Amino acid sequence: MAILYFEEADPYSPIRYSYEVDRVLCSRKTRYQHLFIFENAFWGRVLVLDNVVQLTERDEYLYHEMITHVALHAHPSPRKVLIIGGGDGGSLRETLKHDMVERATLVELDAGVIQASREFLPTLSTGFSDPRAELVEMNGVDFVAKSAGEYDVIIIDSTDPVGPAEALFSREFLAGVHSALKEDGIMVAQTESLHFHRQFVVDTQNILGDLFTFADIYTAPIATYAGNWWTFSIASKVHDPHVLSRRPVVQTSYYAEDVHKQAFLARSLYNRVMGR
Amino acid sequence: MAILYFEEADPYSPIRYSYEVDRVLCSRKTRYQHLFIFENAFWGRVLVLDNVVQLTERDEYLYHEMITHVALHAHPSPRKVLIIGGGDGGSLRETLKHDMVERATLVELDAGVIQASREFLPTLSTGFSDPRAELVEMNGVDFVAKSAGEYDVIIIDSTDPVGPAEALFSREFLAGVHSALKEDGIMVAQTESLHFHRQFVVDTQNILGDLFTFADIYTAPIATYAGNWWTFSIASKVHDPHVLSRRPVVQTSYYAEDVHKQAFLARSLYNRVMGR
Repeated sequence: MAILYFEEADPYSPIRYSYEVDRVLCSRKTRYQHLFIFENAFWGRVLVLDNVVQLTERDEYLYHEMITHVALHAHPSPRKVLIIGGGDGGSLRETLKHDMVERATLVELDAGVIQASREFLPTLSTGFSDPRAELVEMNGVDFVAKSAGEYDVIIIDSTDPVGPAEALFSREFLAGVHSALKEDGIMVAQTESLHFHRQFVVDTQNILGDLFTFADIYTAPIATYAGNWWTFSIASKVHDPHVLSRRPVVQTSYYAEDVHKQAFLARSLYNRVMGR
Repeated sequence: MAILYFEEADPYSPIRYSYEVDRVLCSRKTRYQHLFIFENAFWGRVLVLDNVVQLTERDEYLYHEMITHVALHAHPSPRKVLIIGGGDGGSLRETLKHDMVERATLVELDAGVIQASREFLPTLSTGFSDPRAELVEMNGVDFVAKSAGEYDVIIIDSTDPVGPAEALFSREFLAGVHSALKEDGIMVAQTESLHFHRQFVVDTQNILGDLFTFADIYTAPIATYAGNWWTFSIASKVHDPHVLSRRPVVQTSYYAEDVHKQAFLARSLYNRVMGR
């Protein structure tokens, strides 16, 4: 039998990653990108957009728990949450674990991703049918521009900052996120790998430092994202993002109270990264 | 011009890694393995043994600083240090940064690795000519069996635990390491990726827990090792490996006092990994 491989086409990665493909489940053009889902014995189902791996069933919990629970547990009362991107549903699923969340609005440009998740990724798409979830097909930049002082927490769960997602890391957009947050709001964004995209991490952190009272970087080890030493940039108006609010911690596989505290870059590394 | 790729052949990795090869510097059979060194614009020179990447000039500091300085700074007086493997010289270079080290003995089975490092890896092989360094061409298992109560710190800087290196993770060998240490000795071993080799990490930790007063796991994010969430298993007879002894910290690029403390697995993750 032929052995089929998928090789990731990431022009920004100095290592190429490839995976054995046991079965192709879906390969189609959405309105915005090429969407490909395959099955692999180790990773389970793998979602690929424009030839870059977005998630695997085996390890998606690492990314989705870490992009959501740090901000959600740092905020004392996350009632209204906005997720920009995240059409696979993983961040929505994790957000809805917090009983305090009354409304989670997911703004995804590409409805084709939501559709494919409903069809092929049952463990990711559970939140779509939750009555607290609101799905909006729209560009995140436009959505944020029309919101002011509305959200407790905003989660930017974007693809790599090239093409359509590039605008989600501009100073203008992040200032819009600041405005869309309530006066004690917290935002978090996935900001790529410290090994491969250090300047991008630094640039984003500098913008957030200008806009917010608190700005910091925490990381998680993600084997399926190029460079793996994955950063999340968190920024907060009032609440120290290192400190958990007094609520029971949600049920997880990786995130926990001590993980929350330890995930932030050690101060010496932070200073080295920031060139201080 | 043709674009040349090196694809790693690691049967234990569910992702395949490949690298662009700008120039081949060396491709030869040593007595024990195939040794290949190539140059890549991003990574610098890359050392490959039996088709598995051992180090790159760009990121080797992460691995070599973390395999050495945690144990060396936890020990109050590391005078005699034994390195098993590590023929590239990186662990020796880092060990010799500690002024207190009087003798660093490197026991490498394959003299061909030391030779190639001297020829092609000038930033790695600096320690070989240090008067405090002693190079021994020998099997680490045999060397340890003839040592008793001699070393303050033992560093097991092996290749993957298949083939010749497999014996370096047996209960018998680790008991030998315990005997070769002084009564307040500390040992550390590289123990693969938590993403891809979890059972191996657990098994090794269980053995060390039986033999030593302290046994723990710390990690570093290494993009060029398959699975990247790299573990080091440390075990100590008397000194708590979390606590740095009062000495100035050596000059590094990644390791630091706060990194030392934060690198240990959060307790909740440790318990999850160990199935507790």
